[in-house]
Formats: sequence, structure tokens, C-alpha cells
Amino acid sequence: MKKVAIIMGSDSDLPVVEKAAVLLKDYGVPYVMRVMSAHRCPQRVAEFSRNAEKEGFGVIIAAAGMAAHLAGAVAANTTLPVIGIPIKSGMEGLDALLSTVQMPSGIPVAAVGVNNAKNAAILAAQILSLSEPELSQRLKDERVKMTDEVEEKDRRLQK
Amino acid sequence: MKKVAIIMGSDSDLPVVEKAAVLLKDYGVPYVMRVMSAHRCPQRVAEFSRNAEKEGFGVIIAAAGMAAHLAGAVAANTTLPVIGIPIKSGMEGLDALLSTVQMPSGIPVAAVGVNNAKNAAILAAQILSLSEPELSQRLKDERVKMTDEVEEKDRRLQK
Amino acid sequence: MKKVAIIMGSDSDLPVVEKAAVLLKDYGVPYVMRVMSAHRCPQRVAEFSRNAEKEGFGVIIAAAGMAAHLAGAVAANTTLPVIGIPIKSGMEGLDALLSTVQMPSGIPVAAVGVNNAKNAAILAAQILSLSEPELSQRLKDERVKMTDEVEEKDRRLQK
Amino acid sequence: MKKVAIIMGSDSDLPVVEKAAVLLKDYGVPYVMRVMSAHRCPQRVAEFSRNAEKEGFGVIIAAAGMAAHLAGAVAANTTLPVIGIPIKSGMEGLDALLSTVQMPSGIPVAAVGVNNAKNAAILAAQILSLSEPELSQRLKDERVKMTDEVEEKDRRLQK
Amino acid sequence: MKKVAIIMGSDSDLPVVEKAAVLLKDYGVPYVMRVMSAHRCPQRVAEFSRNAEKEGFGVIIAAAGMAAHLAGAVAANTTLPVIGIPIKSGMEGLDALLSTVQMPSGIPVAAVGVNNAKNAAILAAQILSLSEPELSQRLKDERVKMTDEVEEKDRRLQK
Amino acid sequence: MKKVAIIMGSDSDLPVVEKAAVLLKDYGVPYVMRVMSAHRCPQRVAEFSRNAEKEGFGVIIAAAGMAAHLAGAVAANTTLPVIGIPIKSGMEGLDALLSTVQMPSGIPVAAVGVNNAKNAAILAAQILSLSEPELSQRLKDERVKMTDEVEEKDRRLQK
Amino acid sequence: MKKVAIIMGSDSDLPVVEKAAVLLKDYGVPYVMRVMSAHRCPQRVAEFSRNAEKEGFGVIIAAAGMAAHLAGAVAANTTLPVIGIPIKSGMEGLDALLSTVQMPSGIPVAAVGVNNAKNAAILAAQILSLSEPELSQRLKDERVKMTDEVEEKDRRLQK
Amino acid sequence: MKKVAIIMGSDSDLPVVEKAAVLLKDYGVPYVMRVMSAHRCPQRVAEFSRNAEKEGFGVIIAAAGMAAHLAGAVAANTTLPVIGIPIKSGMEGLDALLSTVQMPSGIPVAAVGVNNAKNAAILAAQILSLSEPELSQRLKDERVKMTDEVEEKDRRLQK
Repeated sequence: MKKVAIIMGSDSDLPVVEKAAVLLKDYGVPYVMRVMSAHRCPQRVAEFSRNAEKEGFGVIIAAAGMAAHLAGAVAANTTLPVIGIPIKSGMEGLDALLSTVQMPSGIPVAAVGVNNAKNAAILAAQILSLSEPELSQRLKDERVKMTDEVEEKDRRLQK
Repeated sequence: MKKVAIIMGSDSDLPVVEKAAVLLKDYGVPYVMRVMSAHRCPQRVAEFSRNAEKEGFGVIIAAAGMAAHLAGAVAANTTLPVIGIPIKSGMEGLDALLSTVQMPSGIPVAAVGVNNAKNAAILAAQILSLSEPELSQRLKDERVKMTDEVEEKDRRLQK
Repeated sequence: MKKVAIIMGSDSDLPVVEKAAVLLKDYGVPYVMRVMSAHRCPQRVAEFSRNAEKEGFGVIIAAAGMAAHLAGAVAANTTLPVIGIPIKSGMEGLDALLSTVQMPSGIPVAAVGVNNAKNAAILAAQILSLSEPELSQRLKDERVKMTDEVEEKDRRLQK
Repeated sequence: MKKVAIIMGSDSDLPVVEKAAVLLKDYGVPYVMRVMSAHRCPQRVAEFSRNAEKEGFGVIIAAAGMAAHLAGAVAANTTLPVIGIPIKSGMEGLDALLSTVQMPSGIPVAAVGVNNAKNAAILAAQILSLSEPELSQRLKDERVKMTDEVEEKDRRLQK
Repeated sequence: MKKVAIIMGSDSDLPVVEKAAVLLKDYGVPYVMRVMSAHRCPQRVAEFSRNAEKEGFGVIIAAAGMAAHLAGAVAANTTLPVIGIPIKSGMEGLDALLSTVQMPSGIPVAAVGVNNAKNAAILAAQILSLSEPELSQRLKDERVKMTDEVEEKDRRLQK
Repeated sequence: MKKVAIIMGSDSDLPVVEKAAVLLKDYGVPYVMRVMSAHRCPQRVAEFSRNAEKEGFGVIIAAAGMAAHLAGAVAANTTLPVIGIPIKSGMEGLDALLSTVQMPSGIPVAAVGVNNAKNAAILAAQILSLSEPELSQRLKDERVKMTDEVEEKDRRLQK
Repeated sequence: MKKVAIIMGSDSDLPVVEKAAVLLKDYGVPYVMRVMSAHRCPQRVAEFSRNAEKEGFGVIIAAAGMAAHLAGAVAANTTLPVIGIPIKSGMEGLDALLSTVQMPSGIPVAAVGVNNAKNAAILAAQILSLSEPELSQRLKDERVKMTDEVEEKDRRLQK
Repeated sequence: MKKVAIIMGSDSDLPVVEKAAVLLKDYGVPYVMRVMSAHRCPQRVAEFSRNAEKEGFGVIIAAAGMAAHLAGAVAANTTLPVIGIPIKSGMEGLDALLSTVQMPSGIPVAAVGVNNAKNAAILAAQILSLSEPELSQRLKDERVKMTDEVEEKDRRLQK
């Protein structure tokens, strides 16, 4: 299976971002986690992104806050699908959300909600699952489980 | 190759959304275009989404404005990757953007920028390209062309 | 009297939403409280909404946060009046408010203020009171009491 | 059948608001349309609201822009359900929306989307339909028609 | 000297609003403090406002949060200058600010900053000082003192 | 009677601001209109403001857009009441509104709504009317006229 | 004198950006104008920025809209001062402003107002003027001229 | 070397602003730190700014919150480059940011991100470094160190 790269702009983002890693691990999706800043080590980000496909990556998740350029900087250097997680660190995350999602025509970033690392991981898994029947089944099973959990909570509430 | 479904909440969204169709056609990616409203025909949306994988779809693009629930309603009924295009129809598209991207944990939508149908199509192509080497090459060629175009504009400006 | 359904997208919304239940109980309005997610169990929401009128419901209150689709998903499946409570869970509730109130033409949701479960309950009671003279009287009595309370506070402050 | 009052803060709101009247007329719901400003004739608004129930009104729709106090001023003087239409006249209607929906605890306003007079009328009809089986049936028929129209547009697009 | 009325929509606003009272007392400006809600006791607000001039008031300060109609409701019933204090109680006070300041043509409210009760009191004093030379002098003295304080802080910082 | 100064940051603001002059003229309130920029001629603004009281001014109205410092710059140099008109010139006037109204403790500006020059003039007249019984009567007469106009519009609509 | 580089993300930004060039030319400040996109030709931007100092540049002005990463991408690759012009192309320029100004600690961008190319050019000239007495004098002369112009407009208005 | 002036509107801003001083000290850039309010001591600000160049200053950093006029007030009185730090003290710093950055044509302020004193200091150093080769080298060394730190964090995370 292709690997997922989880990149964050700063290690202070780790408490939010590691939820993506936990979920991918649980799903059996291979991943690496990296700290790389679009602004503090731009060449490294560019090199990593340019080589990502050759290195066996299929999806790149990039998390950053404020003027969150990381996902865009990665997307500018690869044609792999790139998922952006806007990190909340002021202005309720609106700055990071707009910096992540409002990409110019030609270079898309797939934005998930503010701080929503779990959804980034599920989206990465959904993308990879198109050619991984087992992962696809796992996603369907999880969805059923999720539905069951809500229904269980519903039953408990009604009692 | 798996197909892409392009769904819009209203046919008034067509002038924006059809740019996605034009691009996918040009890339040789099979697609269908549909009008389906999360609010006016919810069952149809649910059925379409539940059957999408079996019908040979690999990615679903959903475009809607205002309280833009369409992408979320699709995502709730499939584990295929779902791309949301927030359509600007008031409030500078902020209502549609937040309604599309701020999905709850467990059901991701991959949001692109407001009205950015072209990026939705490229993102869909990037996702499918993971198992389509020719499409992957096409995306790389387009990227080179895009770079060349900017450089050509740069040269012209300097003259 | 027709019943009120109070639906919430997640049981984490309960501390906010239960104020609606407390008030309806106090007013003698029959109600049920349910956990149902527009995204995690969409079919259940659709079924519940389609059957709500037959099951004796007169008003449905739906509370959800972020990309708050619950009220809209209910409204799409019934012609009963639907009241939406935007739950604050980031972005000061602006995301939930816009996702709840900016419904497309044809499918209204009656939005109350962010986290304002009490007003949702009063609004539901006002709607039912149109054919329930006792409830109507109770609402008027409460209004007088409310006025008296403010006046009592006013007197206390002036001392 | 109880009547609907459609109040607007200024006759400049008429082009937006009259869509509510057109729809109510079409549905056979009796209504009156009035110009009354919460700020320019507050006593008139208060009197009208205090007498509305006795005068045979069941629902009051109030439309206003900017610091849109009209719906709140009506709601403060009646226990009938009050529907607020925020009118867009600057700031993309955000000022009118927040002024309409963020009511204090105890005095609800049922807000619909910015400029969405049609939804205000449908919501009023839904409220009255709880004790008007014919109106209820009409609402259901309209819903089916709406669904059919979207499906017709869908068919046309696919050709 | 004419009196200042300080009205608040709820006694929960007192901790913010009482700073206005403290300052007016210190300046020797007569004032009364009242709790009166535009929504919970609208008639009282209207009566108070209509009689305010006759009762010897020269300025009315009105503080309210959320859909903050109080200042506007007062202004609608008097031609005395009305100062509005938007109280922060969600949405960073933006809802209260817009509800207070965006008044329709013909009925002005003089808005000060969010929670800025002190500035409301100074503004009231400035208005009254136009025919009160002593108060005018006091305001000038305070301004000099304020300047001195900043300069004292400046000196301390430089050491 | 004391005079009103109407200052604008740029003569491009004149079409909005002159409505204030028209109204003051009509009310018989003496005024002067000036172009003075807080940023392009700060000393002039400071001098004018420091001398305003001695020159016979009672109220200063200051209109500016974007980072609208004019009203604040005036207020910093006088203890006369200063009214700020935020001029819309981008960002829906939100930048000008916040720059005008969010003044620090100690130096109030009385903000009116975005572009609402008419309300600035009425507010100035209300302030001066505290010691001008004729102007006070005029304001009351205008209010009655305003009410009558709305009622006339109401009658016309009902026909 | 060191040169100024004026970079824009797209040649569609030229009508806004060329005002910077016109002003620099008028001031006798050498400059070049380039089209370079942070997303469409990231390597070119990186190379240009890394070599800018050696090539004789003293300041870089970068203009971009939406998720405006250009100024940040330049700043990440040079220690020259970088001025960012947020270009308005949706959301009133708020997306471009936040993407430009909210840079992470360590890599500053000097943001000017939305579309304010003229101010970017003046700021660049101010920076260079620190070691260019003639340019410094020119800036002072322009300031005097600007003041004179406002005063001339003031005189004309008063007539 | 020319000096940097660090001005703040209130000594309550010191905890944020002193990071700029610490960094400049570390870089060997001479600086002074001052408390001066655009509103509470406007003349002092004007005088300081007018004399700043003669006093040997090369850059002025001005920090203020809310309707943050300080940087603009300084810029209005000097042609030295002025850097504005918007201080967060309500509304997530949006009020201070817009008040700082949206300057009128002709009088630029170089805005950095909300509360980002460190970036203001680095920007000041970058400006001065144009004629200070040692400082320029120091900035390059710091950049390398910054890159190394991120890479070190990256290595640690991967272990």
C-alpha cells in the first residue's frame, strides 16, 4: 500500500496532529510523521514533496496554523493529493482555514475542518482505499460502528 | 478508470461547476454531471451516494451554496472520497465554505476554495491518478505547462 | 397535544440542549429527546423525520455544531416546522449559525441564537400554543413573570 | 384559518418581502402586509403586536435590515411565533442576521436566511398547517413538486 | 445639571456597566442606574424613554449584549442623545456591536467600543459639559492627568 | 448656538458626508465642513481639535474610511463630544467601523453606522439641543414627521 | 542604489500592482517587475529569492490574492525585507490579508493594506532611503506636497 | 548603526512587546522602548515621530490594540519606515489588525501578525541590515539555526 506522509509546520502542532497518526496506524495504513516548515525550511519541504511519489507516498497530509502555507507549498511541488489541516492558533482558526483552502486555480489542496486531524486521516484512507479493497472494507466497517455508537447513545439517552 | 460524479445542488450552479467537467473531459477522466439537492431531494442524494461505489464511481464532487450541505450529505452515505465546492451566493461564500469544510469527526469532506471547480476536478484526477499512471503523467505534464505559461507571462512583462 | 422532538447531533451537546427539555417539561409539553447525527446515521434521521408527523410530533428541534446540517436534514424530510439550535464548538458558533440558517429556498429552518436551547423550546411551545389555549395562557403568564423579575431586579439595583 | 402578518421596517424592503405574500396568497393563507418601523414608530409596532392574537393573527413575519430590531420588537410584545427575515443592506446581511437571531433568553425569534422571504412564508404556512390539514397537504404536494422539478432539471442536464 | 440614566438589559451586565457609574459619581454627574430589558419589559423601556427628558435626564446610556436592541429601543422613544455599550457575551461582541451601531437613518445611537462602559460615561460627561463649565474643566483636568500617567509609565519603563 | 464641525479624511468622502451638512442646514444648526486627514496633515487636525472649543464648536463629526483614525485623532485633542462616521471603502466598512468605535479607555468616540452621515448630524443636533429648546422642538417635530411618513407608506401599501 | 523587485502571482494582478512601479520610477528607485507564482513555479520563486541580495535587490514587494503565499514564500528564502500586498479577489481581500500578514515567528512579512500597491512602493522607498539621503529628501518633499494637496482641497471645499 | 524605537500604547502591552526588545538586544541592534499613546498623549507621539530621524532612529516599531492608531499616528509624522504590531485585546485582534494595516494611500505602515513582536524586531533588523553587513550576516546565521532547529525536531519526532 502507498504510504501517507503527515507533515506539521511545528512540533507544537503534535497534540492535534497525532490523532491522524493514531487512526492510520489502527487502520493499518503505513505512514511517516515529519516536522517541516514551509517558512523555516522551504527547500526541505520542496524536496520532500518533489520526491514523495518516488518514495512511495500516495497522499500527503499537511497541518499548519496562522498564515498556513504548508499544504500549499507541498501541493506546489507534487501532483499527489494533498490534504490540509488548518490549525487553530488565533482568530478561531479562520486565518489558517482561508490560507489553506483558498488555493489558486491549478494547485488544489483538500482542506478539512479546523484542527480536524482525524478527518484528514480518514480522507487519506478513503483515497488509498480506491485500490485497497481491505482498507475500503475497514472504512465501511468503521462507518457501521460509528452509526451503532450513535444509536447506542440514543438508546441510553431515551432511558 | 473509475468515474467521477459531479453533483450540484441547483442548475444555477452550472456556470461555475461545468469548469470541472471541461477539465475532466480534457484529461480523459470519465464523469457524469447531476443536479441533486440535499434539501429538495434528500433520498435521491442518499441513494445515489450509497450506490456510487458499485456504479463505478471513484470520487464524488459536490457543489452547493449558502448552508451547503450537499457534500456532507453525500459523504454521510459513502466511504468514497468526497470533494466539496462551496458556491458563492451571498456572504462572499463564507457560509458555503464553513458549511462544507467544518464537518464533524468521522465524515470528512475535502473542501476546495470558493467557486474553485477547476481545483475540484484536478483534485479528483490526482486521487484517481494513484492507480492510473497515464493520468498521473498527464497531471505532471499540465503542471509543467502551467509553469511554462507563468514564465512566458513573466518574459512578456519584462519586455 | 402534539409532541416536540428534541434531536441533537451528539450527546456532547446534551448540557446545552437539555435546557429545552427542562422548559418543555415545566410547560407540560410532551417531548422526546434523541441523539441522531445527520452525518453518522443519515438514514435514521431521514426515517425519523419522514415519520414524525404520523408519530404525533408537531415540531422538531434539532441542535448541532460546526457544519450543522441536522436541522436542514430533518427539514428536508418533513413539512413540520423545524427549529435549529446552532451549537458553539469553534468559530464562536458562526459556522453552526450559518449552516443552520442559510437554507435554500423551499426548505426553511427556524434558527434561534447560538446555544439558545431555551428559546428553541419557547418557540416550539408558541407554535403548539396556536391550538392549545392553556399553553398559550401559560406562555403569557411566563412573560408577565419574566417582566416582573426584571422589574424586581431593577428595584433591587436602585436600592 | 389564522392570518399571517408580514411587517417590514421600510417600504424599500418590499421587493424582497413581497415574495412571502405571493407564496401565502398562492397557498390560500390569509395575510396582511404592513410597513412599521421598530425605530420610527415603536408604539405602533408595540400596539400591533399586543393586539395581533386578538385580531386573528397566528404568525408574524418581520423583515428588517442593518440593526434589525423589528422581529425582536414584535416578539417582545406577543407570545405568537415571530419569524424574522434579515434584509441585506450592507455587510452582506451579517448585521441584520445577528440582530435578528441572537435574541436573549425568553423572547425567541425564528430567523430564516438573509433575504429569504419565501422560506419565511413556507415556515409560517408550516406552523399554521399543524391545525389545517388542507394546508398541510398543500405543503406536502409542493414538496413533491419541488423534488420533481429538481429531477426534471437533472434529466435535462444529463441529455 | 441634567442627569444621566444608565440602563442595562440584564443585571448580569452590572460588573461591566458599573464602571460608568463609578466614573460619573467621581465627576459629580448625577445619574441613576436601572435594569430594563428591551425584550422582557418593552413598555417600561418605552415609557421611561418617553419621559426621560421631562424627568430631567440629559443623556441615556444603554448597555446590552447579543441582539442588543436596548439602545435602539430607547432612541426610538426619545430625542435625547443615547449612548450604546455593546456587551460581549458571545461572538466577541460583534453581534452586540452591529445591533447597537447599525441603526436606520433617522434614529441615531452613539456607540462606544465593546464593554467600554468607562468611555460611555466620559462621552455622557462631554455632552453635558457643553453647558457645564465646571464639568468641562474637570474633563480637561482628567485628560491632563491621563497624559501625565502615560508619561510617568514611560519614564518608569525607560529606567 | 455652538457650531458643528464636519471633518472628512478625503474629499472623496463628500458624497456621503454632505448629507450631514444638508440636514444641519435644514435644522438651522451652524456648521463648517472641512477636509483634513489624520495621516496626511496630522498637525492641522491636532491644532483644529485643540482650538475647536475656543472657536465656538460644540460637536465635531469626523468621517473616514479604512484604518479610520480621524475621529480618534480629533478626540485625542479635545474634550468636546466627537462623532465618528465609518466610511465604506472595502471590507464592507468593517475596517472603518472597528477603527472608529474600538477606542481605548479614556478617549471616547461616538460611532454611528457605516456611511450613516444623516444619523451623525441628528446625533450632533440632539447633543446641542440639550441647551437649545427650539432645536429640541425641531427634533421632536421631525420625529413625528418621520412616524407619519412610515404610517403614510403603510396606508399606501395596504391599498 | 539597491533595486526593488516587484513580484506578482499572476499577470491579472498587474492593474493593481503597476501603481507601485509607476511610483518607484517617479522616485528614481530602480526596480524590476516579475510574474512568479508561489504555487505554479515555486522553484523559480525560491531561486529568485535566494539570489535577490546578490543580484543587487534591497527590498522585495510581493503581491498575491486568495491564499496569498507569495510574500511568505519569498521571505522564507531571503533575509531581505519583504513587503506583501494582499490582492482583493474574493472575501473582500480578507483571505489574502490573513495569508500575508499572519506569518509564523521568525519569518516576517511587512503587510500593507488590501490592494495598496502605492503604499508598498512608498514603504520600499522609505526602507532604501535610510542610506539614500536624496531619496529621503524626496519622500519628505512628497509628504509636504500631500499635505498641501489636502489643504488645497480643504480651501476649495470651504469656498 | 541607526536605532530602533519600540513604542507601545500602554504598559499593559509590555509582556507581548518586550520580545522585540530581547531579540534586538541579542542581535546587537540599539533600541529604546517607550510608552506613548496616540490617544492619551498625541502631541508627544507627534513630536517623537517628527524628531525620530534626527535623533538617530532608523525604524520605529509601534504596538497597540483595539482601534490601534499608534503606528499610523507615528507614520503620519515621519518618513522613516514604521512597523505596526496589532495587539490582541478583544475580537481576536481583528480590530487592531485592520486599524493598523488598512492605512490610506500615501502613509504606509508595515504590519506584522497579531501579537508578533518577534517578527517586528526581525523585520526592523532586516531593514537596518541593508547597510549593516554584520547584522545581515547575523540574520542569515539565525535563519540557518532556525532551519537546523526544525530539522532537529523532525529527527526527534521520527525516532
